[in-house]
Amino acid sequence: MIKHLNRRGFIKTASLAGGALWLPNTLQAKQEEFMGEREIGLPKYELDTPALCLDLDKLERNLSQVQEKLKNTGVAVRPHVKTHKCPDLAKMQMQAGAIGVCAAKLSEVEVMLENGVDQVLMTGVNVTPNKIKKAIQLRKKHPGFIQAVDNMENAKDLQEAAKAAGITADVVVDLDVIKRSGAIPGEPALKLAQFVDQAPNLNFRGILAYDGGVQHVHGYQTRRQRNLERMTPIIETHELMKRSGLNLEIFSGGGTGTYDMMGDIPGFTDVQAGSYLFMDCQYMDIGGVGNEELFDDFAPSLTILSTVINTNHPDRLITDGGAKAVTLNKPAARVIGEPNFNYNAGSDEYGTVTFTESNGSYKVGDVLEMIVPHCDPVVNLYDRIYGIRNDKVEKVIPVLARGMSQ
Amino acid sequence: MIKHLNRRGFIKTASLAGGALWLPNTLQAKQEEFMGEREIGLPKYELDTPALCLDLDKLERNLSQVQEKLKNTGVAVRPHVKTHKCPDLAKMQMQAGAIGVCAAKLSEVEVMLENGVDQVLMTGVNVTPNKIKKAIQLRKKHPGFIQAVDNMENAKDLQEAAKAAGITADVVVDLDVIKRSGAIPGEPALKLAQFVDQAPNLNFRGILAYDGGVQHVHGYQTRRQRNLERMTPIIETHELMKRSGLNLEIFSGGGTGTYDMMGDIPGFTDVQAGSYLFMDCQYMDIGGVGNEELFDDFAPSLTILSTVINTNHPDRLITDGGAKAVTLNKPAARVIGEPNFNYNAGSDEYGTVTFTESNGSYKVGDVLEMIVPHCDPVVNLYDRIYGIRNDKVEKVIPVLARGMSQ
Repeated sequence: MIKHLNRRGFIKTASLAGGALWLPNTLQAKQEEFMGEREIGLPKYELDTPALCLDLDKLERNLSQVQEKLKNTGVAVRPHVKTHKCPDLAKMQMQAGAIGVCAAKLSEVEVMLENGVDQVLMTGVNVTPNKIKKAIQLRKKHPGFIQAVDNMENAKDLQEAAKAAGITADVVVDLDVIKRSGAIPGEPALKLAQFVDQAPNLNFRGILAYDGGVQHVHGYQTRRQRNLERMTPIIETHELMKRSGLNLEIFSGGGTGTYDMMGDIPGFTDVQAGSYLFMDCQYMDIGGVGNEELFDDFAPSLTILSTVINTNHPDRLITDGGAKAVTLNKPAARVIGEPNFNYNAGSDEYGTVTFTESNGSYKVGDVLEMIVPHCDPVVNLYDRIYGIRNDKVEKVIPVLARGMSQ
Repeated sequence: MIKHLNRRGFIKTASLAGGALWLPNTLQAKQEEFMGEREIGLPKYELDTPALCLDLDKLERNLSQVQEKLKNTGVAVRPHVKTHKCPDLAKMQMQAGAIGVCAAKLSEVEVMLENGVDQVLMTGVNVTPNKIKKAIQLRKKHPGFIQAVDNMENAKDLQEAAKAAGITADVVVDLDVIKRSGAIPGEPALKLAQFVDQAPNLNFRGILAYDGGVQHVHGYQTRRQRNLERMTPIIETHELMKRSGLNLEIFSGGGTGTYDMMGDIPGFTDVQAGSYLFMDCQYMDIGGVGNEELFDDFAPSLTILSTVINTNHPDRLITDGGAKAVTLNKPAARVIGEPNFNYNAGSDEYGTVTFTESNGSYKVGDVLEMIVPHCDPVVNLYDRIYGIRNDKVEKVIPVLARGMSQ
């Protein structure tokens, strides 16, 4: 379903030309190893660890599940690729029915657009001359690129840059929900939207409003009520814009924690869920519609494999997965099959598992599999994700936008 | 002083062959941009942010300072490259007088050895068949590679693999100080060392004992006393081994927090300090020999540049540097020139600065420069470090072992 054309094609080309990636004396075998080609077909437990694994059956179910749940609600899915940073996965999301994707940063947008993902809405703003210029150049090349603004000066800069490039750039206005990004709802946002709408080289497409604070509120009904309350100024601003005759074809927001609640918001068009395809301990704990303790609409598909390297002390295992492989996010990674294990990733290079009860007896060389604490920053540590089916590596997914925080 | 041969050479070669790194329609200009060649000479404040910057004057002072301080102590420097992950910086450390470097993981070792850093001591263990095989192959190719063992089974596996490869592998025994890695001090460690010493295809070179728990103890004298107390079982084990006639040419350990205290330990040979070349908020806070509040033997050379993207709320700035650019490590990043700023990197994509007093007035597009909270995991987020002198980019240092946690 997915082809690893870009980096693989590159590696092969470089090899023919005698180039090297990080090894000066390059061998074809080394390059295949770098891209994981030698790992295709390998049992997952034989991968060098720490390794980031993706259960493809679970992934595919999650991708169809989000579409299924929203089928008759009038709310579409525009998944946020900041979570996975993989053009290959963005293409799977599009094939599953997404209307486009969101990206957080310009460098991430660029990786998507240049690797065959052609509908990208950038939820962050570009405020420096260099980024504005790049963004406009990207829009010139890719008509499916929409960018956000949240202040008037920036809108003026974008208008000027678009004019200089001889294009009309598509723009949405980001609205402030949690004092982070966004224009102040009400009159200030309306004025900004009207400016964009009237700017000759900008095309106002609608609004964004992401509530990063409500996604992890525990309990479905509490979360649903909180979501509606906090979106009230946004709903009012949407009304205000509507009355003023603005184009509101896009009203985007929401996340994995609120994806099935956004139909409560009048005029809302599409949900920016990111984590739903992987899930993580943070989201599992928020509770779902039929289960207050476990949010199980989606299955945890993303895991870290880590090897036990020391068993010298009782009730303690040391692994090779520390903060550089797991992050410091809380709640801690959960070892599958061992509910009483406490996984501490506080050391950069080592994980420390402490327990009073265990279901197995562990020795040096054994491999633990953990559900990730928080998927986005974990993925951002790895250059590749191993796509696993029937416990074997089916494909290697390059994380092409890893580290693209610019 | 440093040449960016490998990745640059590669990029150019790939370009000649029409290959692409992450862009399928590759232009020479794009590739130069990827490796930062276009940024050479640029004022640092014009870099796309978040950007990781290294003050080259401060770096060079730190590199000579550690050698200067230890000159007449009988303790050598074997810096830990897990901190910087850059062969270029390892070579600078060697030129400054280091006797070799340490590395944490096998993939990191490989990047160093294959990029011209020929004396590498791996402080972690390799316990799986694939890694043992790789380690022995690396030793076959690179005589300067020394690896650690901390259990008998593993030593047997190494002996077998070395025999199969027809080589003698250099080995040190890692000793347990903080219940993490290492063999139990005393008789168990002695037996392991004797086994290694007598194994026909292993060459026992000495011991390691890293105390990851004492490095950040506040106050120089308290830290010094604690270091000595905690090293006591190691000192006794060293004595035991010495009496049994073992080769103890290596007795390595210590870190940036104890680098000038390791001369207290009889027989100690070299310090594995990593952070000293960059420094960070965690280490600045431990206090130094002449200053209980600030550890200032080394200057903070590593900083993150981040751009203000929203100023809509009073006493609050939003930046483009969140957890994916700064990590969740505490204490928080410190904004240079603004001691009253609180930098919260809890959001993946955004930083939130709150303050009651500020020395400047900030607008959207302004750039903040921060001292990193904890250097190792921050570096592990970036593909390149900008080497800065006189506020301009002098060189771009590829972080070739980034993400190499395997």
